[in-house]
Amino acid sequence: MLTSLNNRKSIRKYQKKEVDNQLLTQLLDTAFRASTTGNMQLYSVVVTKDEKKKAQLAPLHFNQPTYVNAPVSLTFCADYNRFNKWCESREAEPGYDNFLSFLNAAIDTMLVAQTFCVAAESKGLGICYLGTALYNAKAIAQILALPKFVVPITTITVGYPDENPAQTDRLPADALIHFETYKDYTNADIDRIYAHKESLAENKKFIAENNKKTLAQVFTDIRYKKADNEAFSKALLDFIKEQGFLK
Amino acid sequence: MLTSLNNRKSIRKYQKKEVDNQLLTQLLDTAFRASTTGNMQLYSVVVTKDEKKKAQLAPLHFNQPTYVNAPVSLTFCADYNRFNKWCESREAEPGYDNFLSFLNAAIDTMLVAQTFCVAAESKGLGICYLGTALYNAKAIAQILALPKFVVPITTITVGYPDENPAQTDRLPADALIHFETYKDYTNADIDRIYAHKESLAENKKFIAENNKKTLAQVFTDIRYKKADNEAFSKALLDFIKEQGFLK
Repeated sequence: MLTSLNNRKSIRKYQKKEVDNQLLTQLLDTAFRASTTGNMQLYSVVVTKDEKKKAQLAPLHFNQPTYVNAPVSLTFCADYNRFNKWCESREAEPGYDNFLSFLNAAIDTMLVAQTFCVAAESKGLGICYLGTALYNAKAIAQILALPKFVVPITTITVGYPDENPAQTDRLPADALIHFETYKDYTNADIDRIYAHKESLAENKKFIAENNKKTLAQVFTDIRYKKADNEAFSKALLDFIKEQGFLK
Repeated sequence: MLTSLNNRKSIRKYQKKEVDNQLLTQLLDTAFRASTTGNMQLYSVVVTKDEKKKAQLAPLHFNQPTYVNAPVSLTFCADYNRFNKWCESREAEPGYDNFLSFLNAAIDTMLVAQTFCVAAESKGLGICYLGTALYNAKAIAQILALPKFVVPITTITVGYPDENPAQTDRLPADALIHFETYKDYTNADIDRIYAHKESLAENKKFIAENNKKTLAQVFTDIRYKKADNEAFSKALLDFIKEQGFLK
């Protein structure tokens, strides 16, 4: 099991082979065994296979090849709608129209998403997470017909791998683990921690292609820009409020 | 692997046996292979073993027996501090002082936390998630010396199981999966979905013990109350802002 977790990689190119609904349901059933806040199971999963739906959603995922190419995508949603409806039909008054409840549901959702991914990878499937679900949450919610108290948190693509990419780099583990208290990073620590990443040929190529001076600039000026983050933040907060969570 | 995921349960009673740091580091190293937004690895993990630290943290986790009883706890934190410091030392201006960046980091964090749990359980360890990390985020951050741009998202207890509890119930999987669009729940759906949960002896006992009429009321009136949720939401939003994420 550790071997499978250690060797995993995200897959962005899939075979033209269907992933059948019975297998998806079995893997999700396994994922639903993940821990959940007070056993409330504050999530729902929407399966997208239909070509028309996919065509509507693709631009919201910036037409990333992994999305366009995948036979199926799953959108994992924070969901208090079902629980609220249960409360209301059982003479109980739900008090979950607030930020903590949203985050609890988002956490429940991510535990299920990641357990699904581990289960799927153990069965030879490949997956890739798309951060775009949060960027375009409102438009995605409209296409998936999500009611109030349901917010898409992440979308993953799923399929049988048609590539075997090299594993991407990771920072040294000891730099991410703190014993007892957080040891803040000195400049020398930062140099050491990022040295391997900065030494990689593909990252040097990245800098050159983007006409930047440092790899960090590729992130701040191209990939995850302040202005974009701020615009998406505003839209996301507005939408979470609209869905009932920030009254 | 599916068998292990299917049979898992949260563990709240542990043997008095240490979990050594080498094993923890190995399992965390595996967890760091989880997907991460743009390979930024926006998380840190703080390991708590020291009895004095534990005594300070225990009340913030409401002195739950699983916390008091566990030989080790791990606090998984959303962390933009390290990445920001890297940017700043590389002539790049970070633009991550916003809500989207906080949520991206929280998602990264949960992928690692859950992968750690799967890895730990596969090695015979037990775990239990504590939602209290979000309730008392600020006080926990002070004890763990978390700097700006670091927010605790979840704490888990870890140890060798000293109990073998029955698995808790789950809602029927088909009720949580939607094909193509979200099928909203009718009253009849709600009755069907919650029937098994409501039929369980332990849940009936729960209602009686708490002097309530329905199981849902145990959640709304006792376990996850509106007034508590609202107070914790306000404190959490204030703290996320203080940490730099909602400027």
